[in-house]
Amino acid sequence: MKLQKGHTVVGFAGLGVMGHSMAGHILEGGYDLLIYNRSKEKGLDLLACGAVWAETPKDLAQKSDVIITIVGYPKDVEELYLGEDGLLSGARPGTVLIDMTTSSPALAVRIAEEGAEKGLPVLDAPVSGGDRGAREAALSIMVGGERETFESVRPLLELLGKKIVLQGGPGCGQHAKMANQIAIASGMMGVCEALVYGKRAGLDPELLLSSISGGAAGSWSLSNLAPRILAGNFAPGFFVKHFLKDMKIALEEADRMDVRVPGLKQAYALYEELAAEGCGEDGTQALYKIYDK
Amino acid sequence: MKLQKGHTVVGFAGLGVMGHSMAGHILEGGYDLLIYNRSKEKGLDLLACGAVWAETPKDLAQKSDVIITIVGYPKDVEELYLGEDGLLSGARPGTVLIDMTTSSPALAVRIAEEGAEKGLPVLDAPVSGGDRGAREAALSIMVGGERETFESVRPLLELLGKKIVLQGGPGCGQHAKMANQIAIASGMMGVCEALVYGKRAGLDPELLLSSISGGAAGSWSLSNLAPRILAGNFAPGFFVKHFLKDMKIALEEADRMDVRVPGLKQAYALYEELAAEGCGEDGTQALYKIYDK
Repeated sequence: MKLQKGHTVVGFAGLGVMGHSMAGHILEGGYDLLIYNRSKEKGLDLLACGAVWAETPKDLAQKSDVIITIVGYPKDVEELYLGEDGLLSGARPGTVLIDMTTSSPALAVRIAEEGAEKGLPVLDAPVSGGDRGAREAALSIMVGGERETFESVRPLLELLGKKIVLQGGPGCGQHAKMANQIAIASGMMGVCEALVYGKRAGLDPELLLSSISGGAAGSWSLSNLAPRILAGNFAPGFFVKHFLKDMKIALEEADRMDVRVPGLKQAYALYEELAAEGCGEDGTQALYKIYDK
Repeated sequence: MKLQKGHTVVGFAGLGVMGHSMAGHILEGGYDLLIYNRSKEKGLDLLACGAVWAETPKDLAQKSDVIITIVGYPKDVEELYLGEDGLLSGARPGTVLIDMTTSSPALAVRIAEEGAEKGLPVLDAPVSGGDRGAREAALSIMVGGERETFESVRPLLELLGKKIVLQGGPGCGQHAKMANQIAIASGMMGVCEALVYGKRAGLDPELLLSSISGGAAGSWSLSNLAPRILAGNFAPGFFVKHFLKDMKIALEEADRMDVRVPGLKQAYALYEELAAEGCGEDGTQALYKIYDK
């Protein structure tokens, strides 16, 4: 498979907050875009800009040279790729499939193996950077798979992200993303605990942030999410429910590999508590609500 | 008290890794420097540059216009300030005392109150930025006390740090520092868990760091301490034993204020485990050793 603008057909499945922006970049990048989504409404503007609609995943697969997917949960990925009328059943040999969903490393390996049996190279390529990173084509993309396959689709990935790194073989993109989420999970506890401590101690939260953001306590979360917390803004950049999904996968993998993750376990328990209070649709910074009550 | 170079005598007690650099900056800044330390050896080079030795804290206090202290533990602060021959017993009314040790907020309030009774304005002004921040006069200084006192010594603090913020009344500098340490504590778990997860998953740690450092998982610890961990460098920028001291104070304060700090508690337990294995003199990044075994 060699990419050629105006010739290569890129199939795109999953037009959520992330996928919609990403599919748009592919179209703007000069590729023919075929789209599939459970609800067609989310693709109407892309269709108006020249994208073509596919009725089913199989239909999408049959007509695409490269397929990019970004859906919700591992079960969605499994159904999309391995289901009866799924992508692997429809794709022509040589078609490259790239799953950008944050999903299970074990599932990524399984899809890569089943793909290989059918002559279909598969990459796992989850992203970090949220809705804003997707909009601004500034995502960090962590890729697992064969180098040759990776190089063949790199120009497409470069339409979506800035930091694009082949982390290793199949599943390694997902593992890198898990490590990313693990670092975030405990870090969010630190941010929330620092803020609520400061509040109870009677400090001015803005002054506190000004003292601690730039030093050894500094983090992306402290710089970007703490101000939202202080403003009472719990709107989702990244959904609590999706973060829970990611942490659950990470916990399972850590357990399987016998990696000790007490911080992750504690963070997961707090986020579960948050979701149980009906905050699954909030952004991850809503963890603060668990502390400040 | 009005600062005047070549006239104002600054007393400095505590010539450890931090204090030694800081006292040097005061001397270079053009002030008369009087020093006191438990062991005189650590001050010899400063004496050679024109500093004058004080035999006791009381002696230091009697001859100083401003006094800066940075020692080890709250009990050292208590003895230094409130002991029989301590600073408060020796200082002339109007002398400003600045404790830059990371210590207990409650003790800071007590010292400020006892100081006020004797006409001695006291500030708590712990710092963040480590040995490097002290050397490069780039510390973040979190100050608690009266604004007038703060303004009167600001030029001195500006010789030591870049980010200098009055956080509130007595004890508020210590509270801000506690919030800083709370954010760091959980964050370090996240960094170590992410790294050990990546290692066990077979990822190249350098590639992993390159993917996750710049995004939502990014932090000062990930950028500055993770590379040391990967290099097997556990030398202290900041001692485990001192971090334990700080976390213990934060835990006590959080308990007193009824602030929930599960992340901090978990981190403290892991650092205690690390110290029990004889790693108290390591740097805080040595937490990784607890995970990777």
